[in-house]
Amino acid sequence: MSNSNPIGIFDSGIGGLTVVKKISSILPSENIVYFGDTARVPYGTKSNDTVIEYALQDAAYLLTHNVKMIIVACNTASSVALPVLKERFDVPVIGMIDPGAKLAIETSRSGKIGVIGTNATINNKAYSAELLKHNGSLEVYEKACPLFVPLAEEGWIDHEATKLIADEYLHELKEKQIDTLILGCTHYPILAGVIGESVGENVELIDSGVAAALVVQKYLEDQNLLNNQAGKGKIDFYVSDLSSKFEEIAGRFLGNPVGEIKKIDVDELVKLI
Amino acid sequence: MSNSNPIGIFDSGIGGLTVVKKISSILPSENIVYFGDTARVPYGTKSNDTVIEYALQDAAYLLTHNVKMIIVACNTASSVALPVLKERFDVPVIGMIDPGAKLAIETSRSGKIGVIGTNATINNKAYSAELLKHNGSLEVYEKACPLFVPLAEEGWIDHEATKLIADEYLHELKEKQIDTLILGCTHYPILAGVIGESVGENVELIDSGVAAALVVQKYLEDQNLLNNQAGKGKIDFYVSDLSSKFEEIAGRFLGNPVGEIKKIDVDELVKLI
Repeated sequence: MSNSNPIGIFDSGIGGLTVVKKISSILPSENIVYFGDTARVPYGTKSNDTVIEYALQDAAYLLTHNVKMIIVACNTASSVALPVLKERFDVPVIGMIDPGAKLAIETSRSGKIGVIGTNATINNKAYSAELLKHNGSLEVYEKACPLFVPLAEEGWIDHEATKLIADEYLHELKEKQIDTLILGCTHYPILAGVIGESVGENVELIDSGVAAALVVQKYLEDQNLLNNQAGKGKIDFYVSDLSSKFEEIAGRFLGNPVGEIKKIDVDELVKLI
Repeated sequence: MSNSNPIGIFDSGIGGLTVVKKISSILPSENIVYFGDTARVPYGTKSNDTVIEYALQDAAYLLTHNVKMIIVACNTASSVALPVLKERFDVPVIGMIDPGAKLAIETSRSGKIGVIGTNATINNKAYSAELLKHNGSLEVYEKACPLFVPLAEEGWIDHEATKLIADEYLHELKEKQIDTLILGCTHYPILAGVIGESVGENVELIDSGVAAALVVQKYLEDQNLLNNQAGKGKIDFYVSDLSSKFEEIAGRFLGNPVGEIKKIDVDELVKLI
């Protein structure tokens, strides 16, 4: 494996671009191949079997680009499919759950940690299992917040309705006096302002994407696999569906214009596994 | 084609169950096969090419059950794929757009008609084209309301946030003094209370599913294809993904428990076309 091989990142759609933003910010020399499965987004409302099947195809697609590692920038896929992906593929596979959970444990002083995510991530108890594995005396409170994804995609980041919805979802966690809240979905950092306001300023928000980016950095350093090229790495974007709103939303998530985006046919993905 | 053959109904997910409810209410003797493409829901955020591909597969799947007609109980698929479906298959194919538009024209006195739907339905201008084809002097105002689908699925039918969101989406249509509003998405009848409150009681809401059910009834009568069996028809439910929340949401949409639901593999669908 050569140092100049790209890092592969996949997500169910565009939420993973918040992770790309973080990786390219701390590792600017790295080449990145991003794949967003926009033809089948969202994963968070789907069954485990279906999410595993899609995740296998997504990872297999990234490997056609000779990626040196795979980042599962989708909490739902991380919570459901990571063991299967790790077993199936030879390159290292890093998900969102383990890095997010570890950073939350390092951050919390009271041991009362909240977790928010999609229905699938919360139903799978992915974060609470990981947190309690490290420390059985933690108090973990989880809440699915399915409206946060469409609100982030609409760009209603400080609308009064978003505040009401955040209060409705988060008041139970606030009553439990958590001091740390894991944003267990890559869309949620977009709404960090409203979420932070709702839970109060004494609660630390943990962005799993940031935590994962630090793990990736450490792994590449340890394995001597950092890309040593001068100048900025190349980022290639692939999606399974190119809808009219994609560029607008992607720009908001990435923090700057996305440039050229190439479409991959779902029929081709299905054939890879 | 025998009268006892079922009516086939497909949708991107569970929204089409509101159409099943109406068809089985006015045509209780009919057998129905419903297919919800829950593994790839929603269609409303996806590109036209992708929606056409999925709709062809969905219709082909219904035909494996020897359906006597196909109802496209998804406004997005109706707005994008209906001509292709009609050309490809021999059985009659009825969509949501034409029946909804005709009923709106019959209902409106002022000629000022509003249309709400998903991004795809509104971007395609499906309803406005159909309305203006019948009467070029109508004033048609369209608005995409992407948050209504997740709100309906969350069951927040009279939450304060839902009211704020409805006001945000609908105030422009209200200012245009529409007297008729087409609910151009099968999920929206679930939120009819809040929507009606937001636009005011002098605006008539048009449920395209009701309009389509009346067209189906007339077609079967004209073709002498009504099912003459005594007693209630059988309704079979098929989906491409069975998630944990499906039964709860489906019950709310159908108005009563769904009973047995069978899962069809997406790989099988892809092979049909």
